Amino acid sequence: MEIGIVGLGRMGSNMAKRLARGGVRVVAWDRDKAKCDEIASEPRLESAEGLADFAVRLSGERVILIMLPAGAPTQSAIDNLLPLLSNNDTLVDGGNSFYKDSMSRALELSQRGLRFVDAGVSGGIHGLANGYCLMLGGTPKAIELFEPFARILAPGPATGWLHCGPSGSGHFSKMIHNGIEYGMMQAFGEGFALLAGRKDFDIDLARLAETWRHGSVVRSWLLDLTAEGLAEDEALESIAPVVADSGEGRWTAMESIEQGTPAPVITMALMSRFSSQGKSDYSRKLLAMMRARFGGHAITKAAPPARKA
Amino acid sequence: MEIGIVGLGRMGSNMAKRLARGGVRVVAWDRDKAKCDEIASEPRLESAEGLADFAVRLSGERVILIMLPAGAPTQSAIDNLLPLLSNNDTLVDGGNSFYKDSMSRALELSQRGLRFVDAGVSGGIHGLANGYCLMLGGTPKAIELFEPFARILAPGPATGWLHCGPSGSGHFSKMIHNGIEYGMMQAFGEGFALLAGRKDFDIDLARLAETWRHGSVVRSWLLDLTAEGLAEDEALESIAPVVADSGEGRWTAMESIEQGTPAPVITMALMSRFSSQGKSDYSRKLLAMMRARFGGHAITKAAPPARKA
Repeated sequence: MEIGIVGLGRMGSNMAKRLARGGVRVVAWDRDKAKCDEIASEPRLESAEGLADFAVRLSGERVILIMLPAGAPTQSAIDNLLPLLSNNDTLVDGGNSFYKDSMSRALELSQRGLRFVDAGVSGGIHGLANGYCLMLGGTPKAIELFEPFARILAPGPATGWLHCGPSGSGHFSKMIHNGIEYGMMQAFGEGFALLAGRKDFDIDLARLAETWRHGSVVRSWLLDLTAEGLAEDEALESIAPVVADSGEGRWTAMESIEQGTPAPVITMALMSRFSSQGKSDYSRKLLAMMRARFGGHAITKAAPPARKA
Repeated sequence: MEIGIVGLGRMGSNMAKRLARGGVRVVAWDRDKAKCDEIASEPRLESAEGLADFAVRLSGERVILIMLPAGAPTQSAIDNLLPLLSNNDTLVDGGNSFYKDSMSRALELSQRGLRFVDAGVSGGIHGLANGYCLMLGGTPKAIELFEPFARILAPGPATGWLHCGPSGSGHFSKMIHNGIEYGMMQAFGEGFALLAGRKDFDIDLARLAETWRHGSVVRSWLLDLTAEGLAEDEALESIAPVVADSGEGRWTAMESIEQGTPAPVITMALMSRFSSQGKSDYSRKLLAMMRARFGGHAITKAAPPARKA
């Protein structure tokens, strides 16, 4: 068994290791040579000198897993791989690509005689030890070719991976998974903020989170991580109140609008992240300005802009 | 070790059984005689003939756990118990009482020489087997007296129960726990609706939920239950789209407003339950009426009201 992996970021390098430890010969490539060097000491894991070298180190009907950020990086890797591929090679996109892009890619690649799997991968940095949850879209044949690797990457050979349906359905399922994650995270964030806001009770939030892990209705992996994090720093003093968002929350909210299926909580969780990024500032300034004009209410003055160095 | 339990509903009767199986002599009472009879066959579990009989069957500094719906039922049980209690008896309210009521109760009872514990209890019908998560508020002495029972009720002697802080903090923690639960449930509901809405992918939702249980970020007890339920009936055909709410979601939303701490997702999850109860119908009719008046848009006619029998 052998597989090629393009992209050795946090996800790609751990997936390469998990596959290699599971007995697979892994040929990996990343444009960052340092990342290639990092994995060089693992048995059964070798890194290529470049994409051409990568392609020739693999034989037969090749299976190549692409673990790159969605959008341009993934597209450019596919573009660069195309001239090096042969009929019946299988490309597996394990990044967080937009599911409609994956539907087009599957079509384009099939027209060139290539197979394609869109693989939604969840599990984050803990996947190396625990296994990854895999949501796979593609033709039965393409999935059949990737299945032996899915069985190693997943938490168990028969658990934690699924052929969801046709091309696009793997990334679609992952997109919705992440939308749900947005809502769950926001619910925990709001709840702990309300607990912290009631200072007279002086509740030990780290111990409460730990308590909830046992027998409560909200027990979950996100709570496990929260309990761990609060035990280290309950005041969260070193963390700025800014939450990034990646494509999948936005796409889930857009899917809701496209379908006309309400997703108010997932959408609100996304909007709350936008606010945390300062994107509500202009609307808030406008409200403060209006209150001053109709009611003479005081305005909180902004700090003067920093002088140019 | 002995304890009295008033209220043998789903929660009370299972907690009585878990305590009795843990070696505690349990004297129980419920105004519904059938519920008293149901537990009569359990070793170490006896039911009383009435509240007076209940009180005399317990000796020493009594610990009495009240497992009744919040509000009038709990208040009336306490009122009826009061003349039967002696100095230093401990009342434990394991219902979902409003935390401010628990703060007043603790004060009133302490003025009569009685001890009080407000105990938030999570775990639902699975608590008998798995143990209950307990959030306890009260004085150190009151908690010390209840601790031996908490160690049996909880999933483990040292896990799943916490002395959160002073009186009120147990029910406060439970209230926030349930608020978080509202948000998590709504996030799952919205996500699965979006998956179901994409009919062309024809994703097996029961199998996807089962897959997510292994290695994904959204794995949680609520997902475990969801996977179980979807495996039995993925179309949910027998279930009307109406979600009840109990006090705790409302109180969490009010707490957010009182503190001025935003809880948009928890509040939205609550509002969505109100809508499911038909409480958005009037506003929706109004919108339809306005659209007809300004744009001549068609109105969907309501079914004629049912004729009186």
